[in-house]
Amino acid sequence: MDNNRYCVIMCGGVGSRFWPYSRSSMPKQFLDFMGTGKSLLQHTVERLHGIIPDENIVIMTNESYSRIIAEQLPQLKPCQILLEPSRRNTAPCNAWAAWHIHSLNPNATIMVASSDHLILNEVEFRASIVRAFDFVEKHSDVLLTMGVKPSRPETGYGYIQVESDIDANFSRVKTFTEKPDMELARVFVDSGEFYWNSGIFFWSAAGIKENIRTLAPEIAEIMDRGEGNYGTVDEQAFINENYSYCPNISIDFAIMEKAPQVCVERVDFGWSDLGTWGALYDVSAKSADNNVVHGCKALTFDSSNNIIAVNGDKLVVVSGLDNYVIADTPDALLIMPKDREDRLRTYVNEIQSLYGDKYL
Amino acid sequence: MDNNRYCVIMCGGVGSRFWPYSRSSMPKQFLDFMGTGKSLLQHTVERLHGIIPDENIVIMTNESYSRIIAEQLPQLKPCQILLEPSRRNTAPCNAWAAWHIHSLNPNATIMVASSDHLILNEVEFRASIVRAFDFVEKHSDVLLTMGVKPSRPETGYGYIQVESDIDANFSRVKTFTEKPDMELARVFVDSGEFYWNSGIFFWSAAGIKENIRTLAPEIAEIMDRGEGNYGTVDEQAFINENYSYCPNISIDFAIMEKAPQVCVERVDFGWSDLGTWGALYDVSAKSADNNVVHGCKALTFDSSNNIIAVNGDKLVVVSGLDNYVIADTPDALLIMPKDREDRLRTYVNEIQSLYGDKYL
Repeated sequence: MDNNRYCVIMCGGVGSRFWPYSRSSMPKQFLDFMGTGKSLLQHTVERLHGIIPDENIVIMTNESYSRIIAEQLPQLKPCQILLEPSRRNTAPCNAWAAWHIHSLNPNATIMVASSDHLILNEVEFRASIVRAFDFVEKHSDVLLTMGVKPSRPETGYGYIQVESDIDANFSRVKTFTEKPDMELARVFVDSGEFYWNSGIFFWSAAGIKENIRTLAPEIAEIMDRGEGNYGTVDEQAFINENYSYCPNISIDFAIMEKAPQVCVERVDFGWSDLGTWGALYDVSAKSADNNVVHGCKALTFDSSNNIIAVNGDKLVVVSGLDNYVIADTPDALLIMPKDREDRLRTYVNEIQSLYGDKYL
Repeated sequence: MDNNRYCVIMCGGVGSRFWPYSRSSMPKQFLDFMGTGKSLLQHTVERLHGIIPDENIVIMTNESYSRIIAEQLPQLKPCQILLEPSRRNTAPCNAWAAWHIHSLNPNATIMVASSDHLILNEVEFRASIVRAFDFVEKHSDVLLTMGVKPSRPETGYGYIQVESDIDANFSRVKTFTEKPDMELARVFVDSGEFYWNSGIFFWSAAGIKENIRTLAPEIAEIMDRGEGNYGTVDEQAFINENYSYCPNISIDFAIMEKAPQVCVERVDFGWSDLGTWGALYDVSAKSADNNVVHGCKALTFDSSNNIIAVNGDKLVVVSGLDNYVIADTPDALLIMPKDREDRLRTYVNEIQSLYGDKYL
């Protein structure tokens, strides 16, 4: 194992798109979402085993999840869990991680991963990681992203258009695109030039610092002020004092779309960001009548294409229902058409305005 | 108050038509079904207050519900709760009640009521009861039933066709009919001759005994063998020994449809047998979007004509659903079109065959 290789795992999401199954007190990444006996976060860490030393894993989260993380990942030391004092999107978060890791090891290369994604083909995923590290170790000024070969015209993902191939696995990036409509998504997929933007990044600690310094100097300035604190007992206090002054901006928008040297590894390992109930339905095992059942017993009559997600030993009987989400917990029940889940955020906002945080 | 007046309350139903809200361990009659703070059984007893002495109330039930009844009706003595050792439908049950009460008071008149019906107009109901007692006290050989003036062509009830009027309130009965189809139900209602069969009966203890002796001698024979035990500490032992030899038959089929002197009181006091989710929906208060919510908080979006019944402080969010039953408990959830509830029995049978009594 290469001791210069690190992984930053983004673990601060509140998982509101899976309300009420995922709750702000126990979001998606901490749940046994696939019924495997392990949380998505635990799977995320396990997949790195043998590639990245345990002590080189850094979890980015916030205070309220530190206890859950310590429970689920007892192999990590407290100093490997960095607590963002406020939500500032992914650019400040990755900046902090880079300054932190660079102070520990100036030769570090970093993989950035989400804690709540699904990977179906782990062997291929691990091979892709090793190729990616090799690549950014050879090209320390390059920011690398993993582009997933699209299997369908998905409108829920951003796309990366590739330019000239560097070799069999890597290309230069031509453009990053927003989520397309269905017509455009079909054009993208048919062209063969577009890949799903996985949000899995690789870079050298020095390289990303340099890019942030150039493209987001207001963030670099704040991080630079902390030099001497990173990796010490004073780091958290410095961050608590200064982090909220960072602009609220994503790493994609602040850095990736503007950086001079951005490459993409073209990968194909059965990836899903599990961003919606529909995405979970798509990747889950289905019953004979095409229902997906998570965490409960279900009897279905004249019902298909539903996803039924319930925590605990509960019996769910569904009759005459097609294409719905049924998500149940001891204090909240959601029944909603699967194709209407773009409205879930509105519902959750209304719940908050009526009942505060009680049901979130 | 007339000390010869008694009420027999049938309280042994398992309430499977309201699964899972109503459970075999805690059926419908014991639940605060209307959100009033009192169970249907408690309302049934309260409605008799001042007409029938508390000590003249007799509850017919089975062993498993004796504790709940004692809790809900602490004013009753244990000897007022008769425990059927096996289910033998309503003829043996009413026979036992008649032999029991007649041994206590040979001049008794008896009202037979269900524990789980809804009465909206209690004043009119109480006036109807008093008229009914007066009638059977004057005509001790008559079996009287209450016929409810139909407000709609309901296919869920049996009907009573009346013959010649006796006076403004009472008629002779021409026929009892089974539940009709919709077309026939319309004809019934339009004719003005048909009334809903409420299952609320009045008779003298001596009169019903005589009719049972003539029309169901095999039941009378068993009950006669118990003479000397009724009203004593030996009564329950005698019943436990002999009751199961009674034929399984309803009082309607065994007696009412065959008796020589059957009359009907024509009544109109907002009655429902609350026999189905749809019946409960019909009599419940509705929200602006025509949903009925029992026992929980509900947010509904593009959803109407649903009945949502949940025990406890739970939040239910429903989107894009019309005309469904949503019934939830800690260990079971049912989602079913409201007009498909004739299939609920099939579902409950399947649940039993798969999981035994666990979810019943």
